[in-house]
Amino acid sequence: MKRLSEMEAYIPGEQPQDKTYVKLNTNESPFPPAPEVVRVLSQQEIEKCNLYSDPTVSSLNRAIADFYDISPDRVFVGNGSDEVLAFSFQAFGDLSHPMFFPDITYGCYRVFAELYNIPFTKIPLDDSLAIRVEDYQNVQGTVVIANPNAQTGTYLSLDSIANLVQQNQDRLVIVDEAYIDFGGESCIRLTDQFDNLLVVQTFSKSRNLAGARVGFAVGNRNLIQDLYQIKYSFNPYNINRLSMLAAKAAIEDRAYFDSCRLHIIQNREWTREQLETMGFTLTKSKANFLLAACSRISGEELYRNLKSRGVLIRYFPDARIQNYIRITIGSAEQMQILIQNIKDILGGL
Amino acid sequence: MKRLSEMEAYIPGEQPQDKTYVKLNTNESPFPPAPEVVRVLSQQEIEKCNLYSDPTVSSLNRAIADFYDISPDRVFVGNGSDEVLAFSFQAFGDLSHPMFFPDITYGCYRVFAELYNIPFTKIPLDDSLAIRVEDYQNVQGTVVIANPNAQTGTYLSLDSIANLVQQNQDRLVIVDEAYIDFGGESCIRLTDQFDNLLVVQTFSKSRNLAGARVGFAVGNRNLIQDLYQIKYSFNPYNINRLSMLAAKAAIEDRAYFDSCRLHIIQNREWTREQLETMGFTLTKSKANFLLAACSRISGEELYRNLKSRGVLIRYFPDARIQNYIRITIGSAEQMQILIQNIKDILGGL
Repeated sequence: MKRLSEMEAYIPGEQPQDKTYVKLNTNESPFPPAPEVVRVLSQQEIEKCNLYSDPTVSSLNRAIADFYDISPDRVFVGNGSDEVLAFSFQAFGDLSHPMFFPDITYGCYRVFAELYNIPFTKIPLDDSLAIRVEDYQNVQGTVVIANPNAQTGTYLSLDSIANLVQQNQDRLVIVDEAYIDFGGESCIRLTDQFDNLLVVQTFSKSRNLAGARVGFAVGNRNLIQDLYQIKYSFNPYNINRLSMLAAKAAIEDRAYFDSCRLHIIQNREWTREQLETMGFTLTKSKANFLLAACSRISGEELYRNLKSRGVLIRYFPDARIQNYIRITIGSAEQMQILIQNIKDILGGL
Repeated sequence: MKRLSEMEAYIPGEQPQDKTYVKLNTNESPFPPAPEVVRVLSQQEIEKCNLYSDPTVSSLNRAIADFYDISPDRVFVGNGSDEVLAFSFQAFGDLSHPMFFPDITYGCYRVFAELYNIPFTKIPLDDSLAIRVEDYQNVQGTVVIANPNAQTGTYLSLDSIANLVQQNQDRLVIVDEAYIDFGGESCIRLTDQFDNLLVVQTFSKSRNLAGARVGFAVGNRNLIQDLYQIKYSFNPYNINRLSMLAAKAAIEDRAYFDSCRLHIIQNREWTREQLETMGFTLTKSKANFLLAACSRISGEELYRNLKSRGVLIRYFPDARIQNYIRITIGSAEQMQILIQNIKDILGGL
């Protein structure tokens, strides 16, 4: 029998069940889904779950296309953006199409590359932990950039992305915009002009639906058709009925979406000020998290200390960011609890 | 840019939106999910969808393990049995581990093999369109058998499966039991004895949850760990919160499950008698569908004629079964409508 070789899988943030934590470790939204989500998941719709879901995901595709004012056949929906990204690696990477991504970024890129035997190169962030877009101008292969970047939250402007995409139109650029709605500008509209740009987004963060598993990609029709080819060859009904309805209701409520993301931005900036006042060093995050280091305590120590006080954050073993903690931005109350606890911990050193 | 080569994707049964059909074409259950499914998908649970789902799927794993009286670490849950099967092909097939499956069976096996570049051999059914289990005894590679078989519904006894698995314990046997609950006996309990047996089941048929996308595999811990390795490297949160709750509620309601499958069995046997009386030839289906041929009309013609009358069934272009139609077993009323329409069509020839 074939047995799997030792791949190093991605390790999701912990989901401990021992007590209720102030949970600031997996970049979830602190807000419930839009009110209409509850209404559309009616008894009548639940009772239709004996029937398969629409494999073309057409009503949700249309709702996403409406939001971004594009044609529905340029949208691909998957079971979470992890699935959309994995399909993209499988579709657009192979031995002669290596992948290039930052040394510090979303951990799944490395895992997907290994899963599909795609050679990859990690390009170091600069000393401020920002992506230096010039470093990607001349690489021969597919570029994968999270914008804002995972772990660091740093953001590349629309112009920077446009330049990168324009520079070499034989090369695909995948931009993972999981965190774009917290202060960045989406490059989705560039897909009108450029055939070599694939933009991936998620309903897990700014649309408050991490537990529904919906993500999507926008690009030119050929790229989108390639993703459908993988989907139909793998799991044609991959999006379930209820998640489709939930995501459609979520993207249609623009006011709630704006309100949630503005709260996150406000809470982020308040938390940033508090941490800076306490002497923390922070990256310029435009995401729903902050990456912060304190010279007086290691990331791991601060993580353990906060966990014992009922506050979950995350730290990373990567050498370049091992002094940092990553803090998901939650509600104002959650951030106050976090800051008070950090004050107490530092005061006791 | 890499572009996908021309793979021939699986074609799911049509889901036309032009009018309401008596839909007997995709082997769905005609019955709604268990009543408790509606209750557990409460407003409170829907409002928690801002949080990620449990990547270990622990509560559903336990419910499945309880049902089959096995240990939860021998259960793997996926986003529909298509995903579970695809993971299994990826985990257990490669150039030196070819796949062997029947020439007429679930179309996705060929598609998965092509997707993962796994060599495969189709072994012909016998003249009665049944699997001849002896043909699989000496093959060098992974065996994939749907039991009951897709399209034909024919069934292999527990003893036949046990013999096949025992014959060569260095070779993996994957048994896809999507249709097992309509008169067959599951070989899940053989996984206690044999390390080279992986059994795949689905919530889409006998558990009335096609639209929720939940399937699972049972096997020894090493096989299950291999599937987790793929899952965590691909889409760690692949099962959404609501489907997890729905599936748990569905498997816990044994009385409803038994009632639904008994109805299907009764309706199948009634429909079989009616068709035989009209001169149809049928395979010995123990699934929630019948495969039936009439010497007076081709499968395609009968399909078109029934569709124009508002009844959807399916036919297949494969040469060996092109005279057949496949009829999903629905409610008693649906089957009466089908039979009346076939009588009318044959009467008009």
